[in-house]
Amino acid sequence: MKNIFFTPGPSALYFTAEQHIKEALKSDIASISHRSKAYVKMHQETTELLRELLQLPENFTIGFTSSATEVWDRMSENLIRKHSVHFINGDFSKKFHTAVSAHGKNAEGRTVAAGTHHDLPSAVIDSNVELIGLAQNETSTGAAMPVEDIYRLRAKYQDPLLVIDAVSSLPIPQFDFTQLDSLYFSVQKSFGLPAGLGVWTFNERCLEKAEQLKAEGNYHDSYNSILKIAKMAAKHQTTCTPNVLNIYLLGKVVKDMLTKGIDQIRQEANYKSALLYNLFETHPKLNAFVKENKFRSKTVGVAEVEGGSESLIKRLAKKGLNIGNGYGEFKNKHIRIASFPTHSKEQIEMLVDEINQLDF
Amino acid sequence: MKNIFFTPGPSALYFTAEQHIKEALKSDIASISHRSKAYVKMHQETTELLRELLQLPENFTIGFTSSATEVWDRMSENLIRKHSVHFINGDFSKKFHTAVSAHGKNAEGRTVAAGTHHDLPSAVIDSNVELIGLAQNETSTGAAMPVEDIYRLRAKYQDPLLVIDAVSSLPIPQFDFTQLDSLYFSVQKSFGLPAGLGVWTFNERCLEKAEQLKAEGNYHDSYNSILKIAKMAAKHQTTCTPNVLNIYLLGKVVKDMLTKGIDQIRQEANYKSALLYNLFETHPKLNAFVKENKFRSKTVGVAEVEGGSESLIKRLAKKGLNIGNGYGEFKNKHIRIASFPTHSKEQIEMLVDEINQLDF
Repeated sequence: MKNIFFTPGPSALYFTAEQHIKEALKSDIASISHRSKAYVKMHQETTELLRELLQLPENFTIGFTSSATEVWDRMSENLIRKHSVHFINGDFSKKFHTAVSAHGKNAEGRTVAAGTHHDLPSAVIDSNVELIGLAQNETSTGAAMPVEDIYRLRAKYQDPLLVIDAVSSLPIPQFDFTQLDSLYFSVQKSFGLPAGLGVWTFNERCLEKAEQLKAEGNYHDSYNSILKIAKMAAKHQTTCTPNVLNIYLLGKVVKDMLTKGIDQIRQEANYKSALLYNLFETHPKLNAFVKENKFRSKTVGVAEVEGGSESLIKRLAKKGLNIGNGYGEFKNKHIRIASFPTHSKEQIEMLVDEINQLDF
Repeated sequence: MKNIFFTPGPSALYFTAEQHIKEALKSDIASISHRSKAYVKMHQETTELLRELLQLPENFTIGFTSSATEVWDRMSENLIRKHSVHFINGDFSKKFHTAVSAHGKNAEGRTVAAGTHHDLPSAVIDSNVELIGLAQNETSTGAAMPVEDIYRLRAKYQDPLLVIDAVSSLPIPQFDFTQLDSLYFSVQKSFGLPAGLGVWTFNERCLEKAEQLKAEGNYHDSYNSILKIAKMAAKHQTTCTPNVLNIYLLGKVVKDMLTKGIDQIRQEANYKSALLYNLFETHPKLNAFVKENKFRSKTVGVAEVEGGSESLIKRLAKKGLNIGNGYGEFKNKHIRIASFPTHSKEQIEMLVDEINQLDF
């Protein structure tokens, strides 16, 4: 039986990805020079399609990195002179805080229990804070911040750069990019691509900050520093030989998403997420880890499993249904189930049926 | 007509790569977690096969980066306190020097004209130099340093770390790893894979240097710093979600190379390279850019073209034969032709015949 991956990333490939990979091989995409006209045309197509899907305004640059992890470093290196604040409610928001601290910056971490959420609209931020980091969608726990809460924080604090981890949620939430300064994601989550590419969007305020730090001599001048990425992105290129195949595939999958319609994809996300949370609320051995509906991720559903999650995960795997284990401290305690755009309503329905029928 | 890419990277895919990509799709390699047992097993297989092919001793770690460009940064950040020396004879050896300088280190660049070579055995190195960098194979000009010359330099200066750019030559030269400290390459050159993965090998002396700099507070603690790469590599893992598909493909292609036999591959490289240089020496409009046979790359042949290279490149492209243009200042002056392991003797013979028959 063919396996289905409901893991929260890497996950199932987008249902058209395999066909696009085969077409890429036929059209020699993996052999063209990353400085050729053919590459530039392809790179531009991908970024323009992505801009359309995300409704990303022109003052935002689309940069490519090796991963979202790299983006944490690049921001630590060149967007913070000294002070940042990080809203931590799980392992991924914590990792950004750890990265900034490792770079010797004064990174304040504000931690609430995993699976819960910060009261963003009531948060008070010191006037010396240069950057605010938060994970809109905590892949480790399935806790999501409503975009409106983020905007209310922004309305109060317009000076610090507001950078948002949307690694596993995009393109499901519709962001208003006038309310944030940088947003980044990985392609192996909701976009259903092979791993090995991060997408980092940032506006002119980020570039101004970097220029300022450079003028002060506080700039880490690496090959993929933000100013170099921006300079090459303006020419539809990258700072080094990139993952050309993935940049091509991203364009193709985004085009397919546009053809299907982002509204349709978002409606399906609501439906699939509701199915998962209905399972977590009705199954005697499962409990939704995030209690309040408002803070539940639409793309990663997480439940505590009475007696531990190992047996359930193994039994499903035997049927070719691969779901995620709990992350970090929740290993063998939680299950994590992705309902990404590639996962059909029928697949989620089948998974829910299987879990309901299993004796675990 | 199917295109053939003789470009010096990205280049033609290894002739088995397409089949391996299709098998990867069937076996869900792109969907497995990079922290799963299946991943760890695959990662270990790839590195063990590569170790066998390169005859890499156990005191060397195999790390994965996004590119060779990244390796320059990682070395600049954590293998040099202050002083390095770089033997520059083309744009890629120069780029490493530029990267180290950008990190505020005192990087001495010793430049000879492109296409010529340093007299390595006679070089004199200051006693404060911590790292010596050189490109064994200058992809920009086709100039190669004989490994014996490198060893003679090493014999005189054993203290500095000796790091070697073999981006476009491996696995053709056989290196004696007791004579060097770090060697790195990219997979989109001789290994015939899609771009987006660098391979960085380094020994315990590099790790000791990094530990020393860390203890002194001179360490740049990024996600892909050498100590983090080494720590994860010991567990057959990477510091972040890597290009899983490429790590899998690298293992498969290396296995195919081992099956074919590295001696056979090296003999063919000699033959193909001899064909190209014979063309450059006999064709009235072509001149080998590297004059001395001893310093000619076995994998990238470069020639000056009387009257400019543009017309020849375009005419060949019309026939589906894609060769490289000159690099940097030599654009439209040179041609660069890769004879990587995937290029068959027959393909190189055909290319030579076509060039001989063309009126350009």
